[in-house]
Amino acid sequence: MDSLSSTLARAIVSSRAEDLNEATLVEARRALVNYLGCALGGAGHPAMDIALRALGQFSGPKNAAVLGRREETDMSLAAFLNGISSHVHDYDDTTPSNYIHPTSPVASALFAYASVRPVSGRDFIHAFVLGFDTVTRIGDATYPAHYKVGWHSTGSIGIFGAAVAIGRLLGLDEKGMLWALGLAATQSSGIRDNFGSMAKAFHPGDAARGGLQAAFLAREGFTTGTTPLEGPRGFAAVTAGGQFDHTGFLDRLGTHFRFEGNTYKPYPCGIVIHPTIELCSSIHAEGVDPARIADVECRVAPLVRDLCDQRPDSGLQGKFSIYHAAAIGLVRGRGGLDEFTDEAVADPELSSMRGKVRATPDPSIGEDAVKVIVRLDDGQEIERFLEGSLGNLRCPLSDAQLAEKFLGQTQGIAGADIHALLARCWRIDDEQDVGDLARSAR
Amino acid sequence: MDSLSSTLARAIVSSRAEDLNEATLVEARRALVNYLGCALGGAGHPAMDIALRALGQFSGPKNAAVLGRREETDMSLAAFLNGISSHVHDYDDTTPSNYIHPTSPVASALFAYASVRPVSGRDFIHAFVLGFDTVTRIGDATYPAHYKVGWHSTGSIGIFGAAVAIGRLLGLDEKGMLWALGLAATQSSGIRDNFGSMAKAFHPGDAARGGLQAAFLAREGFTTGTTPLEGPRGFAAVTAGGQFDHTGFLDRLGTHFRFEGNTYKPYPCGIVIHPTIELCSSIHAEGVDPARIADVECRVAPLVRDLCDQRPDSGLQGKFSIYHAAAIGLVRGRGGLDEFTDEAVADPELSSMRGKVRATPDPSIGEDAVKVIVRLDDGQEIERFLEGSLGNLRCPLSDAQLAEKFLGQTQGIAGADIHALLARCWRIDDEQDVGDLARSAR
Repeated sequence: MDSLSSTLARAIVSSRAEDLNEATLVEARRALVNYLGCALGGAGHPAMDIALRALGQFSGPKNAAVLGRREETDMSLAAFLNGISSHVHDYDDTTPSNYIHPTSPVASALFAYASVRPVSGRDFIHAFVLGFDTVTRIGDATYPAHYKVGWHSTGSIGIFGAAVAIGRLLGLDEKGMLWALGLAATQSSGIRDNFGSMAKAFHPGDAARGGLQAAFLAREGFTTGTTPLEGPRGFAAVTAGGQFDHTGFLDRLGTHFRFEGNTYKPYPCGIVIHPTIELCSSIHAEGVDPARIADVECRVAPLVRDLCDQRPDSGLQGKFSIYHAAAIGLVRGRGGLDEFTDEAVADPELSSMRGKVRATPDPSIGEDAVKVIVRLDDGQEIERFLEGSLGNLRCPLSDAQLAEKFLGQTQGIAGADIHALLARCWRIDDEQDVGDLARSAR
Repeated sequence: MDSLSSTLARAIVSSRAEDLNEATLVEARRALVNYLGCALGGAGHPAMDIALRALGQFSGPKNAAVLGRREETDMSLAAFLNGISSHVHDYDDTTPSNYIHPTSPVASALFAYASVRPVSGRDFIHAFVLGFDTVTRIGDATYPAHYKVGWHSTGSIGIFGAAVAIGRLLGLDEKGMLWALGLAATQSSGIRDNFGSMAKAFHPGDAARGGLQAAFLAREGFTTGTTPLEGPRGFAAVTAGGQFDHTGFLDRLGTHFRFEGNTYKPYPCGIVIHPTIELCSSIHAEGVDPARIADVECRVAPLVRDLCDQRPDSGLQGKFSIYHAAAIGLVRGRGGLDEFTDEAVADPELSSMRGKVRATPDPSIGEDAVKVIVRLDDGQEIERFLEGSLGNLRCPLSDAQLAEKFLGQTQGIAGADIHALLARCWRIDDEQDVGDLARSAR
């Protein structure tokens, strides 16, 4: 019997662009529109300036576009930088079945590659679909074991998608694709100790770069083991306590591509605190005066406390703080990019409100839900419950909302015609050469 | 109380070169001599050609020396390539307390760095000692949990040493050193599924490069979490089931540097099959005719079967085959570089002998021992036992043997004056600028 890894490699190399159905293409385009907005919106973040200062000196031929930046770098470094910019605001897509942000590592490598070598829109979206599907399948097969131990799977699993996508564009054969998977598995990394710091966005960057290099190494014949996913010392054994749902992984492999579980964020922060922002914003909209709030209790799924228990000192930490989420909703009635800056976290009114918020783990509350109990200074209690906030699977962002999000993230960007860029991204598979689009997005 | 990671960072940044005692320097020099021979000896391996073909296109300014090669690359890629060459023959040093090859990831980064920026021999060996000690301490503190789950800790722990060594040369302050450790922890990777393939040597290469880049990123202010080693989602929790021997780790941190457990290999293959090669070679030397051997039983520690159970098709796989180890000893009476080529593995006489070898796990046998029972075609049995083979802690290679090994690995190299290079490496801390030595070793 063929190994699982070989079966995956064969499915990737034998896939044909014409086998993608319209439903898959529609979601793939939505993912890429959301991605490009995030990359452009994050391109000016200090983490990008720092990464360029530190690693720009090692850049090879400066022929690749870094999305949203004037600087050019080599293809590999551009993949890394795109990964940082597209994830640094924690605004990119999320698949709640495994909590991976699947597009950033894959598309970051693809846009960098396409900015140097000609790639048709059709081949681009095909490679993207294969990479995205690989990430989602490995993520689903190893969730929750892999995630729970503390991996940031956007990096540690995202790298497989980048390797597969670039491997496909390089035309790897089955053996080469297996080696690309082997090199991805052996670079798989990224720990959750870094949530709330720049290093969180390092993860998809490193995955995009590592996956891209894995594909180039594999093409030249750099050998690996043959069971990177399922071997006794392979990815699942080493990083997921051996959990790997073989049956689920193989289900409709090569014929169905798992985009149906993807979601897009209306708030630039950890997805599990979105219900809290929305519910607290609606309490604010009811006219509850923040100055009269004495105490706030958020009843949340245990995972929310696990992920978002930070008492923040920085904007990046604020993105993983259930306390900050409640505070911005109650005080400002919104949770936009401006609510997750260092300044917002230092805002005395928000800081004071955070101090009044408690978060109680409650296993009866779903991960997409929250119960908020606000006690006012006169003892009055306001109790509200929300399940399935905006952006959730049950309440997805519409195309119009995605476009609005894109424009909101890119409004400060000079030079490029943002509306034209957005229109082209909606029809990315019609592009003759995606490199032209990538270069327009500098 | 300070966190463990902060304590380590502070010990690194406050260390002074003059605090190293002579015993430490002696072993550090021996490690570097052994390292340089391995790097020069492995520089011509096909894995190096492939890596250069695949990744040379992304090289930045070609101002760094790749040990043993004519080509120059940027510093970061040179660190990666040095890591491959110095480990690809599995001939580099080993610390049996944790089975890490500690010098390759650290020295590979250091030689690349020093080939571009001036570094005195004294600063070089000091940074090396700090990196080596960090690797050994983290390795000891997490052994066996980290290793047993399937990590190739030469990569997954080696990266901390590279980050610390380069961070030290860059003059990081305590906070910067903590971030360098954070970025090392979050890139920690390398799985044992790749034993017997080129990807095994990818691991120290990737660690050298990743550690170097971690230090450069940290210097510019790329932030990370603050508990990369000990946090609930830090390195030990995520990769070692939470095992971390705090007390052992902190024991004499900053005053004693753990070189006393390091060993140098007389055979270019997995260390746990060295006793088998030596014992079978001595049976060969007794005059036992290989043609008369009907059956061979090797009783070995269970770890030997775990690590070296391969039925090899390539030279690299032969390095992890207890069967091949017995065969080369019995048939050829030796285990040099020529016994671990693809040709040797394909040799019909060796292949036939491998088919006669069984390996029985026996918990009463130590990891540095073996019992071999050879049955001849007339039924006669020869039983021999060996404990502590050459190169073992109890039987270390002398300086003269290290020099002989160095010269044996470098005999085919044209251009450089190998004897002069060796002499300088023995006194590396006297060099005014190690870059000059590194450039001489191209």
